[in-house]
Amino acid sequence: MKITTITDKKVSLRRTIDTGTEEQRKIVQSIITDVRGQGDAALFSYTEKFDRVLLDSLKVTEAEYAAAYEALDQELVDIIREAAANIRSFHEKQKRESWFSYNEEGTMLGQKITALDAVGVYVPGGTAAYPSSVLMNVIPAQVAGVKRIVLVSPPNQEGTLPAGVLVAAKELGIEEIYKVGGAQAIAALAYGTETIAAVDKIMGPGNIFVALAKREVFGNVDIDMIAGPSEIVVLSDETAKANEIAADLLSQAEHDKQASSILVTTSMKQAEEVKAEVERQVETLPRKEIAKASIEAYGHIYVAENLETAIAVVNELAPEHLEVLTENPMASLNEIRHAGAIFLGRYSSEPVGDYFAGPNHVLPTNGTARFSSPLNVDDFMKKSSIIQYSEKAFHNNYEKVAKLARLEGLEAHARAMEERLK
Amino acid sequence: MKITTITDKKVSLRRTIDTGTEEQRKIVQSIITDVRGQGDAALFSYTEKFDRVLLDSLKVTEAEYAAAYEALDQELVDIIREAAANIRSFHEKQKRESWFSYNEEGTMLGQKITALDAVGVYVPGGTAAYPSSVLMNVIPAQVAGVKRIVLVSPPNQEGTLPAGVLVAAKELGIEEIYKVGGAQAIAALAYGTETIAAVDKIMGPGNIFVALAKREVFGNVDIDMIAGPSEIVVLSDETAKANEIAADLLSQAEHDKQASSILVTTSMKQAEEVKAEVERQVETLPRKEIAKASIEAYGHIYVAENLETAIAVVNELAPEHLEVLTENPMASLNEIRHAGAIFLGRYSSEPVGDYFAGPNHVLPTNGTARFSSPLNVDDFMKKSSIIQYSEKAFHNNYEKVAKLARLEGLEAHARAMEERLK
Repeated sequence: MKITTITDKKVSLRRTIDTGTEEQRKIVQSIITDVRGQGDAALFSYTEKFDRVLLDSLKVTEAEYAAAYEALDQELVDIIREAAANIRSFHEKQKRESWFSYNEEGTMLGQKITALDAVGVYVPGGTAAYPSSVLMNVIPAQVAGVKRIVLVSPPNQEGTLPAGVLVAAKELGIEEIYKVGGAQAIAALAYGTETIAAVDKIMGPGNIFVALAKREVFGNVDIDMIAGPSEIVVLSDETAKANEIAADLLSQAEHDKQASSILVTTSMKQAEEVKAEVERQVETLPRKEIAKASIEAYGHIYVAENLETAIAVVNELAPEHLEVLTENPMASLNEIRHAGAIFLGRYSSEPVGDYFAGPNHVLPTNGTARFSSPLNVDDFMKKSSIIQYSEKAFHNNYEKVAKLARLEGLEAHARAMEERLK
Repeated sequence: MKITTITDKKVSLRRTIDTGTEEQRKIVQSIITDVRGQGDAALFSYTEKFDRVLLDSLKVTEAEYAAAYEALDQELVDIIREAAANIRSFHEKQKRESWFSYNEEGTMLGQKITALDAVGVYVPGGTAAYPSSVLMNVIPAQVAGVKRIVLVSPPNQEGTLPAGVLVAAKELGIEEIYKVGGAQAIAALAYGTETIAAVDKIMGPGNIFVALAKREVFGNVDIDMIAGPSEIVVLSDETAKANEIAADLLSQAEHDKQASSILVTTSMKQAEEVKAEVERQVETLPRKEIAKASIEAYGHIYVAENLETAIAVVNELAPEHLEVLTENPMASLNEIRHAGAIFLGRYSSEPVGDYFAGPNHVLPTNGTARFSSPLNVDDFMKKSSIIQYSEKAFHNNYEKVAKLARLEGLEAHARAMEERLK
């Protein structure tokens, strides 16, 4: 890992997000057109083409769930249940209620909060088919009160889905899981087919074709953020342990060659120890090729002259995951303005948050924590303003409204007021 | 207006949003490239080209504010102040606080809520330069606690901005207003120039070039929704007055030839009266050309057999503005699932909400109220999750986390846990 002494706080994580080639965009557009025109038939035929399996039906059957439970240790099922309970408990604290308020003129104003009717969650295929992603995307929707939650995921060559994903979905009571992936799955969720009714919002990560399809259908339905590469920043002083910092940096690096693992420390001695530990620990990892490539390309250690400068660097980076491994982490919390999830102290290693503690692991990446939030219950609800003007309030105020309307040259607005006087 | 008896609830407002021509997209891309490369010089030169005025400086001067106050009646200034106070009072009820919660193992979980650092608001030029838009976009940002709020708006040929806009901005204490519009203004807000520092989020409506530029910079900064054509739906029974319904429909129709004004009523008699009233009232409007074109193309009256069917139609339409002019509007509120703003009763004519009552007038258009909300304080804040695991919680749970990580094939995640035991 490269070690740099911080002299200029203008650091940035920002990397260009892959927006696809012209050819990829054309492929995605033609898939969407086919799904809109041919419905299920297009889904079967693209699944045969891309996933190399000819399905009998899109929907996961009871027999497949039973086989998934067979394949998984009961102990793992219990852990999934406990993780789900923790995630539910955290997200229930996010839920908000509608409110109404009356003033002395008898006018009522309010905000009605309503769950979305239907959402779709994309679960990537292959080695990235994570049970934890099912929990993290579905539970906030359930807490919000979304009635219809649909999962889609590309089948493997046996025509089914990984046991962990099926068990996680079943544990949450999901009734609609369809074995379809790629742009064709996004098109089905956005426009509907004979088997899959359209939804209002599409969540979840995917490859470039999924990301392009989400961009394409955005506006007709809502989508979540298009996720960029993932990152961790560790903020530390000399009190933290180099072996633990290194292990945490590597847990990020093993995700993806594009991932970045960054240490911002006030100690040059620690910087050198962490560098050596990373080099030592990475050699024994099963995913060492990925982790090495990630550390090589995007790993970095910044040494700051003091904690204040170090925190300024963190705010510039606006990381997805931030671990604070200083003598008094809580004391720095107020100064940390931009980070998706903040892990305080040595017992809050990032994987605790990825799987189990309760907060969501779907987080703003690539510096977007400056303006974005972790996935949360609000993402599955929308607001309506309520206005019930009283007769008294109307008579006290209609002339003011009419004057403002006329200032803006909107005469019919003023007359809508005056028509009430007739 | 066309009158249709409802037999099929499958109605929709949805119209294709203008996504620009290939040529328009190329123009926007080259403007953005120029602003990124040349900074202020590009802003002056595009302003000369498109707005036909060569400016000395981009920033509005104290002399211009003074002239604006000269130009406006004191009474209007007072009304703007009162409207601003109402808007502030409503939005303060939306503001949320950070929370933290401890469990019996000593673990602390929480949600930290932070205002964005800097936002930009685009105010369109010409006849669409509305003081009310300044109030509606700026006040929620101020309530959220955004420290830096920047307004941009294209100058007129005298090189200044409309008095109403300047007074509204000054009343709110805005210190940065720049006379620049179009794609060049969006590029400046997203990437910064010598005079205009970059922001984190860009709000506000604009023409097709502004909309395309917002799409282009999205991801690097956040943007609000790209607004589609505006609409009103009036839900009524035989108790409502046809002249008032007609006036309200026309207040929407005068905005824009693309606007839609729709009545959903349980009374055929009323439908015919409203049609006649619209035809009578439209003739006397200064903007009758626009209103007529809008009513002709997108005006519609649906007659439903009963209130239940009428409400089902409203939910299908998911309108931006909904007026409920029935005998007991409050009784229907629970059944109305999708609408941006809901106006209850005859004294809640839509312009009351456009200008004065307090709720925001920036609302989800074109049926997107199915999944979107009025502009609100949350749009200017973001969340960070906080995790502070206790030593006890770590020892009780690290094995579970490691097992989940290994189920997902992420060995380094498991080892980050186990490294803590050394």
